[in-house]
Amino acid sequence: MDFFFNPDSLAVIGASDHYPGEAILNNARLSQIKGSVYAVNPKRDRLGGVPCYPSVEQIPGPLDLALILTPAQAVPGALEACARKGVKGAIIESAGFAEVGEKGMELQERCLAVAQESGMRLWGPNCMGLVDLARRRFFTFMDAKLTHSLGEPGQVGLVVQSGMLSAAFLADLATRRGMSVAKVCSIGNRCDVNECDLLEYLIGDPDCRAIALYLESLKQGRRLSQLAAASAKPLVVLLGGQSKGGARAALSHTASLAGDARLAKSVLEGSGVVLARDFHHMAELANALALLKPPRKKARVAVLTFSGGSGILTCDLLESHGLDLAGLSEKSLAALQEFFPPWMRPGNPVDLYPAMERIGRLPAFERAAEICLDDPAVDVLIFHYSLGVEDRTLDPVRLKEMADRAGKSLLFWCLGVGEAVLEFSLRAQQAGAPVFGELSLAVEALAVAADRWGGVEEAIPASEASPAAAPPADPELVWDERRSKETLAAYGIPVVQEEAVGDAAQAAQAAERLGWPVVLKGALPGVVHKTEQGLVRLGLANLDQVSRAYEELQAAMGGKGQVLAQRQARHEYELIAGFLRDANFGPCLMLGLGGVLAELMPRAAFAAIPLATDAAWDLIDRVGVARLFQGWRGAPPLDRAGLVELLMGLARLAQERPDIAQVDINPVAVEEGKPFALDATIVLESGEKSGAS
Amino acid sequence: MDFFFNPDSLAVIGASDHYPGEAILNNARLSQIKGSVYAVNPKRDRLGGVPCYPSVEQIPGPLDLALILTPAQAVPGALEACARKGVKGAIIESAGFAEVGEKGMELQERCLAVAQESGMRLWGPNCMGLVDLARRRFFTFMDAKLTHSLGEPGQVGLVVQSGMLSAAFLADLATRRGMSVAKVCSIGNRCDVNECDLLEYLIGDPDCRAIALYLESLKQGRRLSQLAAASAKPLVVLLGGQSKGGARAALSHTASLAGDARLAKSVLEGSGVVLARDFHHMAELANALALLKPPRKKARVAVLTFSGGSGILTCDLLESHGLDLAGLSEKSLAALQEFFPPWMRPGNPVDLYPAMERIGRLPAFERAAEICLDDPAVDVLIFHYSLGVEDRTLDPVRLKEMADRAGKSLLFWCLGVGEAVLEFSLRAQQAGAPVFGELSLAVEALAVAADRWGGVEEAIPASEASPAAAPPADPELVWDERRSKETLAAYGIPVVQEEAVGDAAQAAQAAERLGWPVVLKGALPGVVHKTEQGLVRLGLANLDQVSRAYEELQAAMGGKGQVLAQRQARHEYELIAGFLRDANFGPCLMLGLGGVLAELMPRAAFAAIPLATDAAWDLIDRVGVARLFQGWRGAPPLDRAGLVELLMGLARLAQERPDIAQVDINPVAVEEGKPFALDATIVLESGEKSGAS
Repeated sequence: MDFFFNPDSLAVIGASDHYPGEAILNNARLSQIKGSVYAVNPKRDRLGGVPCYPSVEQIPGPLDLALILTPAQAVPGALEACARKGVKGAIIESAGFAEVGEKGMELQERCLAVAQESGMRLWGPNCMGLVDLARRRFFTFMDAKLTHSLGEPGQVGLVVQSGMLSAAFLADLATRRGMSVAKVCSIGNRCDVNECDLLEYLIGDPDCRAIALYLESLKQGRRLSQLAAASAKPLVVLLGGQSKGGARAALSHTASLAGDARLAKSVLEGSGVVLARDFHHMAELANALALLKPPRKKARVAVLTFSGGSGILTCDLLESHGLDLAGLSEKSLAALQEFFPPWMRPGNPVDLYPAMERIGRLPAFERAAEICLDDPAVDVLIFHYSLGVEDRTLDPVRLKEMADRAGKSLLFWCLGVGEAVLEFSLRAQQAGAPVFGELSLAVEALAVAADRWGGVEEAIPASEASPAAAPPADPELVWDERRSKETLAAYGIPVVQEEAVGDAAQAAQAAERLGWPVVLKGALPGVVHKTEQGLVRLGLANLDQVSRAYEELQAAMGGKGQVLAQRQARHEYELIAGFLRDANFGPCLMLGLGGVLAELMPRAAFAAIPLATDAAWDLIDRVGVARLFQGWRGAPPLDRAGLVELLMGLARLAQERPDIAQVDINPVAVEEGKPFALDATIVLESGEKSGAS
Repeated sequence: MDFFFNPDSLAVIGASDHYPGEAILNNARLSQIKGSVYAVNPKRDRLGGVPCYPSVEQIPGPLDLALILTPAQAVPGALEACARKGVKGAIIESAGFAEVGEKGMELQERCLAVAQESGMRLWGPNCMGLVDLARRRFFTFMDAKLTHSLGEPGQVGLVVQSGMLSAAFLADLATRRGMSVAKVCSIGNRCDVNECDLLEYLIGDPDCRAIALYLESLKQGRRLSQLAAASAKPLVVLLGGQSKGGARAALSHTASLAGDARLAKSVLEGSGVVLARDFHHMAELANALALLKPPRKKARVAVLTFSGGSGILTCDLLESHGLDLAGLSEKSLAALQEFFPPWMRPGNPVDLYPAMERIGRLPAFERAAEICLDDPAVDVLIFHYSLGVEDRTLDPVRLKEMADRAGKSLLFWCLGVGEAVLEFSLRAQQAGAPVFGELSLAVEALAVAADRWGGVEEAIPASEASPAAAPPADPELVWDERRSKETLAAYGIPVVQEEAVGDAAQAAQAAERLGWPVVLKGALPGVVHKTEQGLVRLGLANLDQVSRAYEELQAAMGGKGQVLAQRQARHEYELIAGFLRDANFGPCLMLGLGGVLAELMPRAAFAAIPLATDAAWDLIDRVGVARLFQGWRGAPPLDRAGLVELLMGLARLAQERPDIAQVDINPVAVEEGKPFALDATIVLESGEKSGAS
């Protein structure tokens, strides 16, 4: 493969004096290669200052690489000439092959046959070729204006199946984000060289520290995942063509067919690939992963900011990605206090605005950066900076050197006037520190780097302990299940069938009425979590089992509570509904997922009371589980009207009973689509102890 | 409130000849107001070209508004003078109040007392004041360089609690995204005027077509949600301070306290608010919602693109947001074909690259736009465009006019050289068409506009039909449950206890051994979905129930299958595990959520076989439900080692039995944390009909 990237000599077949044949020749001439660049065009003697030959066979001396941009029909003939000349590889940039239908497919197969016979490798067809910024090689018909706007090389190797995207996209990255790539390979129809061949090459390429791939289909999925698993370099993949429309478009576009995208994405992810959701997301993640020193997994982050609000949002984003805000040392805090105003206690995020007003912007940032980089409790510095305001601005190169000396990771989030931000970004990224325009992306990239490539430098404290047991509830304020449900029933809320029973025989008689198997529960004021306290016995099938359960419940309650025999629900799933009185929003209705669903996906929606019936319908939608509510695998759909009635009953209760602080119906069981209260707790306002009911 | 925005006259208290007192005065002087701007500073006679007074009381004539930027200690005195002068409102931009602790809080309360006594309204303290680009008013100490970089007014009203952010952020929007706002209000400590007051004003403000709010806490949650519910204008809210660290920072930053963010976000969302996740996300969504004509809910989108890959990704994004790709009319397709190359059938996305090569870029885009805007099957045009390549470029204003005439929505996604993109964005957005730099954000904004503000112009076709019933499986290839589980057991995979029974009495005897209540199932080769076919009876509590179930199962199977008595599992949740042989990736192991969990959240992870034990552990993590697997509400955690063994057993089976195409253990029940196969199906390769076992 190396002859594609580092040819000694090359010929441009299809060179001409107008676009695109002119552009591909000019780009090839700009390229720094060891030997010569030749033009091939039977109608000319010279083109763009280089000798022009009727065919590659007339070119004197050996030839490594051919760039082909003739009409498609002429390509097989050109390749035959290349084969006779002993050319090692050809990049076919012409279109008109498999992507245009049967005739093109035939042409493509003829090309492949020529190559296979001669051992020559083919790249393309239907592609934009190769741009190598690190070694200044432009084997592409990309417009020269674009070529010139790409700037200094970056550290990412980019492989894209789509051609046109690469040119405008590279210019966009360079001139809008101050970001660049080392190489970009546009691979087109992949009749021979495919993404795996290129990935393998780029993994071994010292110019690339991370690799990004945009693919509309996979040629060799298994090989790709094996390469990814074996690669020490970060790989970021964006898979297009996952939707029906997208796959159809991909089919006509580069003659591909989307496979099972879900399987492909999961296998790749399991092989260590980072999946991207958009072009810029792919490029920015790859760039960040190429530049960023990965911090340890549970990275402790210091945030320097000119804006309290940005510091706050950074905290939120760090927490949502499982990263820690560093607790600065006493020494650091004291050092910060020296230039902070006396009324302001320093903390992390380090909000430098008041200090900036005191000692100036640059000194405040520089001193704070030194202090944080010097603090052993800090692994990463997120540096917020605004540009275009002052003439003297921070030197990102010096800051990066400081971070390197301290062995810490550094990244910037910058706002401000366009030109100034671009100039700063170019300098910082050339120095190896990623610069982001969006805070959320900055934190996401850091989290990916820490999670995938970060070392574990010390044991992670076992903070995953189960949440502390709730303090025991006041039995005068917290009603038991039976009393709670009686009140709900009075407001038209359906509740499960149950009977209070005085002994095991009564329980068995109740079971005959309710149906076997039956449930026994212990109801005790002040007790909310009955299951955890062993006060629920399910699936009792006969008198023996009922008797044993009855005795155990009585023992567990110390003779204080009441035993309930309850019909055993065969519900499809559980919800939670209720209301509470919020200090800020007043009485609010709540509907959410219950039981194991809630553990999986703690979804809940709230609405202020009073509410219109419309808003109750809307609340159901807002839980965001339409698919569950539609009914699953033959299960009946949720009786939405019934659930709306239940919710409106709760709302009425909230309005008519100001003595009640909170109602939790947990769970609302949904059986054959019908919702009803399977268990419930009513909590009184704390002023209501005297026993209003 | 109008005197804050449209004062006849104003005084700058704390004006000086250096920053920030100089900046606030200069900005005030730049402002276009009806009457005069005065400076107040006891040490000077004139400042920056305007008369300077020792106190507002010496100012001749009436005074509407005071901008205050003295040291905090001097503010109450200044306010008293304002009260005596009859000033209607004061914007206190000085810091040093509630945010600095007790002493500052006292000062703030003194200010509020003065205001309440006199009826004067207070804005701030600790804020950046007001910038009104639509009416050219700059009541802020923002650096003049920033003020000048803000450009033309946009159509968004922005309210931010954080001050410093607003200046750099506005410059960033204007000079990097070609986007602007109509007004920005920095509200600081909100001792009197709060976000609700401003929101109410902006809802009635003809200059603002959408409103964005960045808030670190809510002063009047209920009022905010009521205002939102009553507003016809789109509101976008970013709530900061939701994490513990963020709330702590917010507390010191603007003297706020985060409430229950989950409740607040949900109630606001229910009131029609769009929630944002980042500053730029907030600004870009608000800008798009201000500019974009909302299409109908199920909008049909045409995509014009210079890049097949971008078209494909757009399709994927549209589908994931529930939007439809428009099916272009025959007339449109024929019109496109006229300038497409003959080998290329036009479709949607309209990939214009080959047509551009034929007739030029500009004509190709313009003709395609006309055709699509004219097509009654198109509601929205997403226009991909690259800039900086050709000298002649598209006129966004003309295009917007065409879209308006056709009554259609238009949005741009642009890539290219920075300056050219910025210039185009400024023009397009001034003309009322939003321009995005990220495709994913463009589609998200469109989806929000359609979903929240789009009309339903015609009935949505009921495409939500349950998926078509699977074709009946071949009984020679699809093993029944019992045979499948026997094979699994031979590979060390734990399976549920069960016995084949020949009549009801045998079933009851089995139940005695397995425990009551018991399960009966009908096992029949070729039948995968037993529940849907009525072949599963759960919770059988006694001989009667068992006899009835036995007879029903036999009847349902027509005497063909076998009845199984099975221990009734009391599992916490269900998983699915298995393998399949993928054309691209070869044999792959699969682990996912099962049962109702899968309906809620269809999560599955795949890994290529063979796999290392490490990769099996990793597979469990990759299902992404750590919280569920940790055990919930007293439930034991998942026995991961047991699940790894099960997975490795499956992998071995896949390798040793090439005759088996696929294994589905559905469900893997997890009971007391232990996983085991509760039901399973083995499917043979279709060449294996002859009956290998």
